Amino acid sequence: MRALVWDGGAVRVTDHAPPVSTHDTAVVRVTVAGICNTDLELIKGYMGFRGVLGHEFVGIVEDGPGTWRGQRVVGEINFGCGRCTTCAQGLRRHCPTRRVMGIVDADGAFAEQLAVPLANLHLVPDQVPDDAAVFAEPLAAAFEILEQVHLRPGMECVVLGDGKLGLLVAQVLHQAGARVVAVGKHDDKLGILRARGIETVRSEQWHHTQADLVVEATGSAAAFAAAVAATRPRGTLVLKSTVAAAAPLNLAPVVINEITVVGSRCGSFAPALRALEVGSVDVGSLISARMPLHDGVDALRRAAVPGALKVLLQP
Amino acid sequence: MRALVWDGGAVRVTDHAPPVSTHDTAVVRVTVAGICNTDLELIKGYMGFRGVLGHEFVGIVEDGPGTWRGQRVVGEINFGCGRCTTCAQGLRRHCPTRRVMGIVDADGAFAEQLAVPLANLHLVPDQVPDDAAVFAEPLAAAFEILEQVHLRPGMECVVLGDGKLGLLVAQVLHQAGARVVAVGKHDDKLGILRARGIETVRSEQWHHTQADLVVEATGSAAAFAAAVAATRPRGTLVLKSTVAAAAPLNLAPVVINEITVVGSRCGSFAPALRALEVGSVDVGSLISARMPLHDGVDALRRAAVPGALKVLLQP
Repeated sequence: MRALVWDGGAVRVTDHAPPVSTHDTAVVRVTVAGICNTDLELIKGYMGFRGVLGHEFVGIVEDGPGTWRGQRVVGEINFGCGRCTTCAQGLRRHCPTRRVMGIVDADGAFAEQLAVPLANLHLVPDQVPDDAAVFAEPLAAAFEILEQVHLRPGMECVVLGDGKLGLLVAQVLHQAGARVVAVGKHDDKLGILRARGIETVRSEQWHHTQADLVVEATGSAAAFAAAVAATRPRGTLVLKSTVAAAAPLNLAPVVINEITVVGSRCGSFAPALRALEVGSVDVGSLISARMPLHDGVDALRRAAVPGALKVLLQP
Repeated sequence: MRALVWDGGAVRVTDHAPPVSTHDTAVVRVTVAGICNTDLELIKGYMGFRGVLGHEFVGIVEDGPGTWRGQRVVGEINFGCGRCTTCAQGLRRHCPTRRVMGIVDADGAFAEQLAVPLANLHLVPDQVPDDAAVFAEPLAAAFEILEQVHLRPGMECVVLGDGKLGLLVAQVLHQAGARVVAVGKHDDKLGILRARGIETVRSEQWHHTQADLVVEATGSAAAFAAAVAATRPRGTLVLKSTVAAAAPLNLAPVVINEITVVGSRCGSFAPALRALEVGSVDVGSLISARMPLHDGVDALRRAAVPGALKVLLQP
């Protein structure tokens, strides 16, 4: 089958052995896949991954148990072992021996087909088109904040960063009833939020507030100090950026102001699919381009252009 | 009156204007005061403080409203304005214009007398001797962790650091029912904890665990990475060290493992006084020396010797 493969030195569209189903794994024919910033990091060497890239997809189950065959599905990306104490505690996403779709030791979704554990599959509601369903994974990462932080009515929230994740986070907090101010560099991207009734500020015009909840989604380690400064004493700062490099950070304000810093990664797909079903989050406006899989290398380049939002791939 | 004063260049025992009471401030005659590591930081320039040092004390109210006069008291160190929204939310310890006893714009307790807002005073139970009551402030800082983190039965806790605060934190978590492993460099200090039935490990023999709760109380920024590594996915890391310098820190593991990092500073005195009353925490073993106020400069030196625990001052 055709697939976009990173071999550690180069990324290319090539012929790749198709996946096979097992007793607990389905083979899914990919309909649409989405490029994430993590994919761009992987081809710079992040995680030392080799194989088929891609972890955002929607597709049709082609091979697997009868109840799943023919169903339209999305899939959670962390493949827990299902046998360790971490998995037993309901933390399969943190299984110490997990494989991760298109990121750690498991081929991903930039291909005609991929293998997904049955435990990771979610049916897509009929009302949700493929172009929306493909956002289930990043939208679940945004909803993960609500799993971790008790969002109280009347909370003042600041979201730093107007990239794809920042735009989803701002909408998730807004639809949950919080007052949200989104801070970003791109007026066109912030416009997507304004159209949903969310207050926006350009970074250069933003004055640090003392918000109850601040979400750092800029993807830059340099934003940490500003994010801490924007959090009120006893407030909460959610970190969404996996910035791998060690940067000089001063934790004294975290201690003095007794700030709670919450690391936040992947989330459960259920609330994301529900939001897509009821239309409480706009994902359509986040699509920058739609390209065929055979132009996958170009698509990665396009996704890397500053200001680009979601680039979709179609096998 | 006699007082230990830091003038920004030198610290000396000198004659200092005595405090006067106001309608909402009492004058307390100090019986015993304790030297904290923060005092040692202040005379290196921390916070740019000038004035009488000291924020741990027990004493007798000498001047103030009739109901307070003659009472044996300890006093919380953050003097909130009592009028701002932060104070109104019950966060007087985080009042943006707060003065702090012996730390920010308020004379401290290394003196014959000091002024304390009535709102900050706590009566000392009769059963608690002065040498124990003087630990109310640091012990309250240890109890602050229980205000911020829901300590569940069966939680596995690791306390990093066997300094004064680390020894108090380990005991507070232990008496609250958690399983605690204390990690430190000094076998004699760790022995204080073993005598209370707390498991201890020497730093060099410690292997990172995956604890539910880790408390970083080493006073060193370098311990952050080890503290993060010792915290299980979705676990909690409490930061007790106000390390002012910006050190290179990698936050990626915090995000990937979805760790909650909780900055923790001063606490309410009530639970600390209660623990001293019922004897659930041993503070007597933490006293390294007792010296007269007129030897205050020597006492600071003695408190700075590596391995020293609490040095008490008596006016």
